[in-house]
Amino acid sequence: MTDEQINELKRIFGTTPFIFDLGIEPLSAANGECVTVLNLQPRHLQQDGFVHAGVQATMADHTAGAAAATLVQAGHFVLTTEFKIHFLRPAKGEKLECIARVLKPGRLLTIVESEVYCESGQKRTFVSKAIATMANVPKVTPKTQGD
Amino acid sequence: MTDEQINELKRIFGTTPFIFDLGIEPLSAANGECVTVLNLQPRHLQQDGFVHAGVQATMADHTAGAAAATLVQAGHFVLTTEFKIHFLRPAKGEKLECIARVLKPGRLLTIVESEVYCESGQKRTFVSKAIATMANVPKVTPKTQGD
Amino acid sequence: MTDEQINELKRIFGTTPFIFDLGIEPLSAANGECVTVLNLQPRHLQQDGFVHAGVQATMADHTAGAAAATLVQAGHFVLTTEFKIHFLRPAKGEKLECIARVLKPGRLLTIVESEVYCESGQKRTFVSKAIATMANVPKVTPKTQGD
Amino acid sequence: MTDEQINELKRIFGTTPFIFDLGIEPLSAANGECVTVLNLQPRHLQQDGFVHAGVQATMADHTAGAAAATLVQAGHFVLTTEFKIHFLRPAKGEKLECIARVLKPGRLLTIVESEVYCESGQKRTFVSKAIATMANVPKVTPKTQGD
Repeated sequence: MTDEQINELKRIFGTTPFIFDLGIEPLSAANGECVTVLNLQPRHLQQDGFVHAGVQATMADHTAGAAAATLVQAGHFVLTTEFKIHFLRPAKGEKLECIARVLKPGRLLTIVESEVYCESGQKRTFVSKAIATMANVPKVTPKTQGD
Repeated sequence: MTDEQINELKRIFGTTPFIFDLGIEPLSAANGECVTVLNLQPRHLQQDGFVHAGVQATMADHTAGAAAATLVQAGHFVLTTEFKIHFLRPAKGEKLECIARVLKPGRLLTIVESEVYCESGQKRTFVSKAIATMANVPKVTPKTQGD
Repeated sequence: MTDEQINELKRIFGTTPFIFDLGIEPLSAANGECVTVLNLQPRHLQQDGFVHAGVQATMADHTAGAAAATLVQAGHFVLTTEFKIHFLRPAKGEKLECIARVLKPGRLLTIVESEVYCESGQKRTFVSKAIATMANVPKVTPKTQGD
Repeated sequence: MTDEQINELKRIFGTTPFIFDLGIEPLSAANGECVTVLNLQPRHLQQDGFVHAGVQATMADHTAGAAAATLVQAGHFVLTTEFKIHFLRPAKGEKLECIARVLKPGRLLTIVESEVYCESGQKRTFVSKAIATMANVPKVTPKTQGD
């Protein structure tokens, strides 16, 4: 991606209040794949110092949506209809990275897998994995989800 | 629950940085059930004005954990090993309420269902539903999740 | 339902080879709900004598599809795009019963919950629970699933 | 694997009545991975001629269990506590092949991914994908699932 494309991508992520508030930023998004990062802050944690499951789920979901959006037909956007996430290992460190890849594109539904990694110093740990169903929704009727 | 118990419950929720940061508060937690609320703010939303899937997922997960924790044996705590959430209807309004109920308690695993409702004026809409697996982990070895 | 309607329902179930082969029969299907039964035979079991997870999953899936089909628009049929099933307790007995109810009807997707019970003598045990996404597909293009 | 090991593996699969009845056979099982095959027969199908979702789910689940079993500690066996499966493309052909790989081994829980492929002539299609949670259960108390 060109710098211009990356800046446009960051702008789009910045227009989603919850993602902007958490600090999740895109590194790339093209051809059914998206990569995002999150610099961890104390407010992202559980009481035990590990990253909250909800932070990981949010990142997995939003990155999956962005991956699906790279393949969506013109005049459509994507909405999450469901996802499942497994927490494989405790997440403790300075940064999360999420890689989402479309497993199956479709006209109505896109299936996407997301993997979340946690970086602590030189160590990179695979901490969670999600599979999501995204609905491709025409922009003229943006009111319903799963509908 | 007595006022004292509810205050203690609020104190515990307040010790989880991510939950405190989002503003999710408990109304009750006992006998395998927990109810929480979240007064919606602009930062909880997607770019289209609806509540972000990640906010709903976080609330469904954390409330499920609190419901499971009411039944966990002494000296143990609960960790989410996985959950799946369906987004049934768009969530737009002033407040989310989440009700989590243990579907199946167990010595090692607790299965919990969470339902999220969105309140807009007098209208209450059932917006998402999750099922989660919680692992009962002894407090002496709090380091691993799903292990 | 009238006897005639039930006979027609049994006829439809009988046209699905795998369901006929397993012996799963419908008791009722109307208004977003379907009930099925299966008289357990040795071939439905695991090596430990409990009902195989695959038998329960098949029953949960097919009954969910039949529940969704009661609400589908004319000229359409339903296809499973995904489901998740939790095995709550071991299933041992003479009969399984499955109750599926539509959680959320929709124009494109229907979300359905299925509960499977196992009957052993007078005892009835809640053994598994599934949530499924069904796609409503026009009959003219029956070739794709999740597409 | 040696011929002797494969024969022993086939013998074990043959002791599970439902798997034997369907005709699912193992090709290999070692180091957290298992491969199985199923020669498709008319009784495995839906009314539209495609392989029933329940057949694919059964194969994904059982192969995942066999993959987890290759890593389980001595004196233990594995039980499915939950799985989710996505049906990506319609399955029509002569044979299904399922490849299951452990995503995360653990002392109490093993997370496994299964992929199902359908072969029709020279064509091989990726038709479904599952993620399952397997519980490692001591053989002395084989009575409970998810417990």
